[in-house]
Amino acid sequence: MNLGQQLSILIKNTSIISDPQVIDCAIKGITDYFACSLQACQKDDVHKLLAWIADEGGNTRALLIGQKKLVTARQAALFNGFQAHCLDYDDVHSDVRGHPSAVILSALIASVRLDSIEQKVDSRRFLTAYVIGIEVMALLGKSVNPQHYEKGWHATITLGGIAATAAICYLYDEPFLSQALTLAATQASGMRLLMGTPIKFLHAGLAAQHAVQSVEWLRAGIHADQDFLDDKLGFLAIYGQGNTHFDLSHWGKTWKIVDPGLWFKNYSYCSAAAYIADAGQLLYQNLSFEFDNINNIVIYFAPPNSDAALIYKTPSLAQQGRFSAEYVLALTLLGLPLGFEQFSSQPISNAIKQLMQKMKRSYQTHLTPHPEAYNGRYVIIDIFLKNGKKISQCIDIPKGSPKNPYSQTEMSLKLHSAIKDQAKTEQLLTDIHKLAKGLDFRQFLLSYLFTL
Amino acid sequence: MNLGQQLSILIKNTSIISDPQVIDCAIKGITDYFACSLQACQKDDVHKLLAWIADEGGNTRALLIGQKKLVTARQAALFNGFQAHCLDYDDVHSDVRGHPSAVILSALIASVRLDSIEQKVDSRRFLTAYVIGIEVMALLGKSVNPQHYEKGWHATITLGGIAATAAICYLYDEPFLSQALTLAATQASGMRLLMGTPIKFLHAGLAAQHAVQSVEWLRAGIHADQDFLDDKLGFLAIYGQGNTHFDLSHWGKTWKIVDPGLWFKNYSYCSAAAYIADAGQLLYQNLSFEFDNINNIVIYFAPPNSDAALIYKTPSLAQQGRFSAEYVLALTLLGLPLGFEQFSSQPISNAIKQLMQKMKRSYQTHLTPHPEAYNGRYVIIDIFLKNGKKISQCIDIPKGSPKNPYSQTEMSLKLHSAIKDQAKTEQLLTDIHKLAKGLDFRQFLLSYLFTL
Repeated sequence: MNLGQQLSILIKNTSIISDPQVIDCAIKGITDYFACSLQACQKDDVHKLLAWIADEGGNTRALLIGQKKLVTARQAALFNGFQAHCLDYDDVHSDVRGHPSAVILSALIASVRLDSIEQKVDSRRFLTAYVIGIEVMALLGKSVNPQHYEKGWHATITLGGIAATAAICYLYDEPFLSQALTLAATQASGMRLLMGTPIKFLHAGLAAQHAVQSVEWLRAGIHADQDFLDDKLGFLAIYGQGNTHFDLSHWGKTWKIVDPGLWFKNYSYCSAAAYIADAGQLLYQNLSFEFDNINNIVIYFAPPNSDAALIYKTPSLAQQGRFSAEYVLALTLLGLPLGFEQFSSQPISNAIKQLMQKMKRSYQTHLTPHPEAYNGRYVIIDIFLKNGKKISQCIDIPKGSPKNPYSQTEMSLKLHSAIKDQAKTEQLLTDIHKLAKGLDFRQFLLSYLFTL
Repeated sequence: MNLGQQLSILIKNTSIISDPQVIDCAIKGITDYFACSLQACQKDDVHKLLAWIADEGGNTRALLIGQKKLVTARQAALFNGFQAHCLDYDDVHSDVRGHPSAVILSALIASVRLDSIEQKVDSRRFLTAYVIGIEVMALLGKSVNPQHYEKGWHATITLGGIAATAAICYLYDEPFLSQALTLAATQASGMRLLMGTPIKFLHAGLAAQHAVQSVEWLRAGIHADQDFLDDKLGFLAIYGQGNTHFDLSHWGKTWKIVDPGLWFKNYSYCSAAAYIADAGQLLYQNLSFEFDNINNIVIYFAPPNSDAALIYKTPSLAQQGRFSAEYVLALTLLGLPLGFEQFSSQPISNAIKQLMQKMKRSYQTHLTPHPEAYNGRYVIIDIFLKNGKKISQCIDIPKGSPKNPYSQTEMSLKLHSAIKDQAKTEQLLTDIHKLAKGLDFRQFLLSYLFTL
């Protein structure tokens, strides 16, 4: 039996998960997803996409989060994925090297038909479908990375469409699961080159659309009889850059949503820059020198290439700064806030540019990181002063990463800052926690739709 | 200036083409496109996709060819691309190693809004847009092939979406051309693995959809400020397998639709098997032996890997036989017709399987092909008889290929066999030829829509 068939059988045979630790992680992921979506729902680009959807039209079935609107399933997938990711504020998974929930939850939610009272969707099955989506995405990532990512692929979309397809097919127990995975795999695209443009965010929506349309076309009766994974012309051969080991041995015993776990963000820059931000903030708090005294700054990354996502060394627009170690370090060293307004489409100021010009990147491997540092990643900032002194700061487990997580209070505050209304925030948190008890997910969306 | 910018400027500055040889090729391509689309318009899978479109709904703007229906532009692109390609009966371009017109014309036609009387589309500009689409697709193919194709990519979709985007942007003189190319490029996907399944045909529709939605999202105001082609994380780096030479030096002097030109088909198997079919038919006409006397058959391909598209050596379903040298050779040696019914979803008979078992493939390079044989390709069939004799047949310029083209009469017959009505066929042929004179392409589609 080939790997694609093995994967399909494992997915189909997965029982609804009740392990509290797993469910707790899923609940956190869903909470964060709504916080990111609602934080973004008044954004300019979101309104542009809304206007396009109104112009295209279609039968109204699936929820646009935070917009009090029903649209087609493909439109909902595209839109919700874009909206959830468009502040780069949503969760990350280190095996994926990308954003899983913006894709998987957007596709799952888009697949729920709200125009029919016949279809009930068990919320516990929904939670398990989400866990399975994360699992498939992380397993694919573990198999093809780091080469896949370093080659230039944007894993959020290349792996996300397949993962979201697995999740939808599990939710509805679709008989064509393996064909749907193949159909999603043959739509896998997305270049990291687009980071720093709004298309990076559209990638999350496209991946969710790939999943939804794959399932719809198979339901319509179009066949895709082929296994996608380990053929010599298959997904691993094409996207794996030589990596073809796909490890299914832990399926059902441990889940990737728990270990290594999701990485949540309270900022809108790339999580690879979180190390930089934490180091910069500590340096700023402890600094006892004038900026004029800085001779140069070296940013050490370990292991080599762990800065692959930070593609801008000399960004000119603030939005490119999401992917710039230099920009995030300059902001923190200057004591500037790291809010959304610092990552807009505006040009970067000269003061920041001058500070960035003093920085260079380097790579080192001799230091031993904290044993819980994921993949042995760490960052060291060395500031060399004109008087010959050096000030240094190392970060190996940044805030928000699974081993240094935000508290429940911090997560609730993130949701509150998106919703802005205390009572509504508490109601939504209560409702999200009820998903673990088993209720109709469709009803959850409908009541949610009409209160927010 | 980088390659993406150079390409965009060349496209924008291209004048409407009036060279009769170029226009003649474009007219032939359009004629063939309608023949393929209309031949397929009652097919089962086409009806399934129609039902899916009706279920999704949307504002009605763009033509579904041969279906007397208007749908959304994205649906029309997807459907028309699928329909035009779903018999594998449509044109091929050797630089592309795929099917250009099914993608480019489907996207162009889907982009024409038929719900508004304000928008006029000059048919001469339409023809030039089509020529530009073919040019971009062939230039991309020339740059990334053969490695791109051999790696497992399906060039019809990976290159087609970008090419069709170039065509649409030229047609409407869109200011965001280079961004649209980037947005199409980041959607480039499609595995050759899917050959032998209906998804191969859906790939043509997906590519057309990639183009249409790229243009729509840019019109909606979503930005994609990045050049796609020659960045170190760009299209050529990711999809070129090391090939990064992209030759723009002939732009506007010669056109790829003329040289090497389009390859038309009067059969529904892969054009790589056309060499086999021609050889098999000649052998059948000259055969003077019993099948029991065949000891074994060797199929020589030159140059090596020129059989890459023929992925099935032992097909079990007739539809897989489209991509099987062995199946097509067995059909011809047995004197069986090569009509659509021989490439259905039915199992292959035992008589054919037994004959296929006597065949093996080999590769050779010592023979000099005809100087006009494209890329030096040829096929030799050696039949070894039990009495020690050998019967041999070589084909280097198969029927339908640009250097051995179908006559105008043969092309008209192909259209007639699709439309079935002589008067309507003649009317359509007359209308298509009028496109070169300059008329509103929208009116052409509308009158066409209401007569067929």
